[in-house]
Amino acid sequence: MPEYVVRPVGRVESPLTDLAAAPKQSDEGAPPARIVFEPEYREAAADLRPGAEVLVLTWLHAGDRDVLSVHPRGDLGRAREGVFSTRSPDRPNPIGLHAVTVVEVAGDSITVDGLEAIDGTPVVDVKPVLGGLHER
Amino acid sequence: MPEYVVRPVGRVESPLTDLAAAPKQSDEGAPPARIVFEPEYREAAADLRPGAEVLVLTWLHAGDRDVLSVHPRGDLGRAREGVFSTRSPDRPNPIGLHAVTVVEVAGDSITVDGLEAIDGTPVVDVKPVLGGLHER
Repeated sequence: MPEYVVRPVGRVESPLTDLAAAPKQSDEGAPPARIVFEPEYREAAADLRPGAEVLVLTWLHAGDRDVLSVHPRGDLGRAREGVFSTRSPDRPNPIGLHAVTVVEVAGDSITVDGLEAIDGTPVVDVKPVLGGLHER
Repeated sequence: MPEYVVRPVGRVESPLTDLAAAPKQSDEGAPPARIVFEPEYREAAADLRPGAEVLVLTWLHAGDRDVLSVHPRGDLGRAREGVFSTRSPDRPNPIGLHAVTVVEVAGDSITVDGLEAIDGTPVVDVKPVLGGLHER
């Protein structure tokens, strides 16, 4: 099958710099973080507003793409599972998915309430959380 | 920023072949579909089971990557919005996100209850929907 090129649209600015110490999910004590958009993609982000619930997609560049199964959450007491049944950052395409709320908007960036990705992580997409059919 | 290469791990097999006629979201009348995994990635999918709620990530290869704002849902009566506030398939990195339930598992494929991506769409990742903290 053909391959495709992912072009980062921005990057994470976060106090988290140590991968080993980072929380595993947004709701496990992750600190607020900024997403700084590249100038050429600001138009795409122009309608994000404080209070918006969004899904941030990142490229977990430290992930090991050759890993196909893991002990969930690194717990050796748990049986290995195929990575498509886990949220392991080690997976064939290490796309991170983060459900967050926008808390502040500036010219070239947004601040979100909690993000477990470390400083410098590339951001590849932002999508709204879908409401009910009548809100679309 | 550096670019990254996405390697499809499988593809969608679906009765949907006409992009214009496809539903816009999984819960808008999308038919069941199969996801057929490439042989080298089967291990990653080996623990998916019927009943599992998963997020399927696709590469919407027909998307226009130069589009930064759209009329939501193609409705010209609605003001243009930056694509990061919409689910438009036209966006810088056309990653599709589909919340589905696994209904059947075979050796090299899974069947999901409803998927709006058309036949042949590349699949790039599958992730479990996260339950509460105690279920992780």
